[in-house]
Amino acid sequence: MDSSSSIEKDLELIKSTSPLIHNITNYVVMNNTANGLLAIGASPVMAHAPEEVAEMTSISSALVLNIGTLEESWVKAMLIAGRTALSNGIPVIFDPVGAGATSYRNEISRKIIEECHPSIIRGNASEIMALYNTNTKTKGVDSTSSSGSALETAKLLAKETKSIVVISGETDYITDGRKVGKIKNGSPLMARVTGMGCTATAIVAAFAAVNKDFFHAAMHGMAVMGIAGERAAGKARGNGSMQVYFLDELYNLTGEMIKKQIQLTEE
Amino acid sequence: MDSSSSIEKDLELIKSTSPLIHNITNYVVMNNTANGLLAIGASPVMAHAPEEVAEMTSISSALVLNIGTLEESWVKAMLIAGRTALSNGIPVIFDPVGAGATSYRNEISRKIIEECHPSIIRGNASEIMALYNTNTKTKGVDSTSSSGSALETAKLLAKETKSIVVISGETDYITDGRKVGKIKNGSPLMARVTGMGCTATAIVAAFAAVNKDFFHAAMHGMAVMGIAGERAAGKARGNGSMQVYFLDELYNLTGEMIKKQIQLTEE
Amino acid sequence: MDSSSSIEKDLELIKSTSPLIHNITNYVVMNNTANGLLAIGASPVMAHAPEEVAEMTSISSALVLNIGTLEESWVKAMLIAGRTALSNGIPVIFDPVGAGATSYRNEISRKIIEECHPSIIRGNASEIMALYNTNTKTKGVDSTSSSGSALETAKLLAKETKSIVVISGETDYITDGRKVGKIKNGSPLMARVTGMGCTATAIVAAFAAVNKDFFHAAMHGMAVMGIAGERAAGKARGNGSMQVYFLDELYNLTGEMIKKQIQLTEE
Repeated sequence: MDSSSSIEKDLELIKSTSPLIHNITNYVVMNNTANGLLAIGASPVMAHAPEEVAEMTSISSALVLNIGTLEESWVKAMLIAGRTALSNGIPVIFDPVGAGATSYRNEISRKIIEECHPSIIRGNASEIMALYNTNTKTKGVDSTSSSGSALETAKLLAKETKSIVVISGETDYITDGRKVGKIKNGSPLMARVTGMGCTATAIVAAFAAVNKDFFHAAMHGMAVMGIAGERAAGKARGNGSMQVYFLDELYNLTGEMIKKQIQLTEE
Repeated sequence: MDSSSSIEKDLELIKSTSPLIHNITNYVVMNNTANGLLAIGASPVMAHAPEEVAEMTSISSALVLNIGTLEESWVKAMLIAGRTALSNGIPVIFDPVGAGATSYRNEISRKIIEECHPSIIRGNASEIMALYNTNTKTKGVDSTSSSGSALETAKLLAKETKSIVVISGETDYITDGRKVGKIKNGSPLMARVTGMGCTATAIVAAFAAVNKDFFHAAMHGMAVMGIAGERAAGKARGNGSMQVYFLDELYNLTGEMIKKQIQLTEE
Repeated sequence: MDSSSSIEKDLELIKSTSPLIHNITNYVVMNNTANGLLAIGASPVMAHAPEEVAEMTSISSALVLNIGTLEESWVKAMLIAGRTALSNGIPVIFDPVGAGATSYRNEISRKIIEECHPSIIRGNASEIMALYNTNTKTKGVDSTSSSGSALETAKLLAKETKSIVVISGETDYITDGRKVGKIKNGSPLMARVTGMGCTATAIVAAFAAVNKDFFHAAMHGMAVMGIAGERAAGKARGNGSMQVYFLDELYNLTGEMIKKQIQLTEE
């Protein structure tokens, strides 16, 4: 089965089973994230009270942890939910928003990775690099710099954490530490809409909910994001309409569109 | 006066008096809720600090309590605000988002009903059924199932709580325990936009702020939602544009449009 | 250099340097605020954990403090961030949302002004008047009323706080206590979109990040808001599309458009 057929199959599974995706995410993007998940046919739920997150996670098909606007009580909830997911075989998708910007974000990222063992980690190049430097204290910044590029760092991070690592950018890279997938879809206008990366993480979670091959789930989610994004950018007149058209494109995405537009390679 | 004229009259009152609606609601929908209220001419305010909610509620014309992303300190604020509303004769409109999904939501829903005596409760069928089973511990799930349908449960809940109960769905049902109103307006696309139900609750609150006959206030609010929703769905290409067009339709809604489109019955 | 050239120069600086704007703001508007900043080329970050705000502020070029949905822990973070900004020479832009509505908002507003010495304060007429009455306890409501108008109050507030004070409205007024700038751009439809004032505050912060003449930074930010707002209102069919078009207009704003439309005077 070629890539576009596999993506189409996953997309149909999402639409037919409408998996519940539990999001503990940031305030800025909650609305977009929920609408992105609804657009592809998944069922979003947001809940962050320590009193209820274990119960909510345990009825979900995937858990998104996103530290964009973290604070103590939310971190507590993330760890409870993440450990619940781990012990129930529910995939955890981790978005280390702003890792590297503050030591608090680095510390919490390390804790989430250690205690929740995310199936997939998605960030931009600097977040992934910060994560690796943070996670492997002894290596520091220099050794990473010498490792050449964010992709090499992502491979090391993937090997060490046993997570699939996704770097979003002009080209998206997906790696399990050995294999590397590349997706060249997308548009620069996506970076001008707040929370597009966070939406990508949630969409990847929806694919992980229906496809236990997490490397390919991540590939499929990122491909769908990129294709919807470039279709929307072709119509948008700015970042306001981009946000609207992006959801509409995601909502209307067909196997044929995917087949026609996809720019994906796997090595 | 026929239904469409009564709705038009309430709508004019909302536009001319611009009632302040105090919302203690969830993070996902705050922006939509505020814009929905502004679209029909009401004045939204969001405030959740225990230090100020009593003061804010006491200058408001209606209070919305929505447990979509509840947590301990917010629940505390909801109860303070709800009791303030109760003792000042300000209607409380309760949205039990996710009731039934976790025991925490069930417990808090019960508390809000007991301590704040909402004038109107609005939820989807499963939330209303969960609420009834929760609220009347001794009956359990079975007796409700045997009561036949969500509408029968809604009637029982309305009788017991002395609240108007609204079930949103393909057909919306509104009941005081005896009378039943039905509204057949709306579109399936509304369920693909996050927080459409939460907006409905806030719009109902705006009608309750100007019409003390809460059964009809609920009818009018739900009718306006459904009519704006089906007008928007006729133009939308997905859930992105649906959200935008819905606000525009709400903003431009006239008595003539209501008269032409309304599908409302009362038994 | 005339006004439109100065604005264009600042706008180019924002686009070329992409200043990081740290926002501790309210839940309702976070998404719009972030997209507004992205539209003009600035880089938004939201962070409110007391553990990290000092670190985040210290790498930022301006700090927005907005009390729209304040609560104890957020106020704590605002004061930490504000004091950090103050000691690092980073401008603090304060938005006293709802000042006057509750005594808690008045008290916190007073604290923020005293401890963080905002470079610019932006509010609507009633917020600015409430702020002055609050800040200068001994004067009470009456003396302010006799001072004639919100502009006179704004001048007194500016003198006392040494902040630039901005009153948003049909005409925007900007004052340092002596000079007064007036901007007549904008549209009444802006007031029907939630958080438009909060976006104005953030846009002003982006200008303050690149222009240390805060009186003119405030003028430029408000002018850009008004021009984008009236362009968007010319196309919008309601408050839904207004929000979308506003971002698109901000995204596409050119020096030529500014020159053609600007209605600004300075006395």
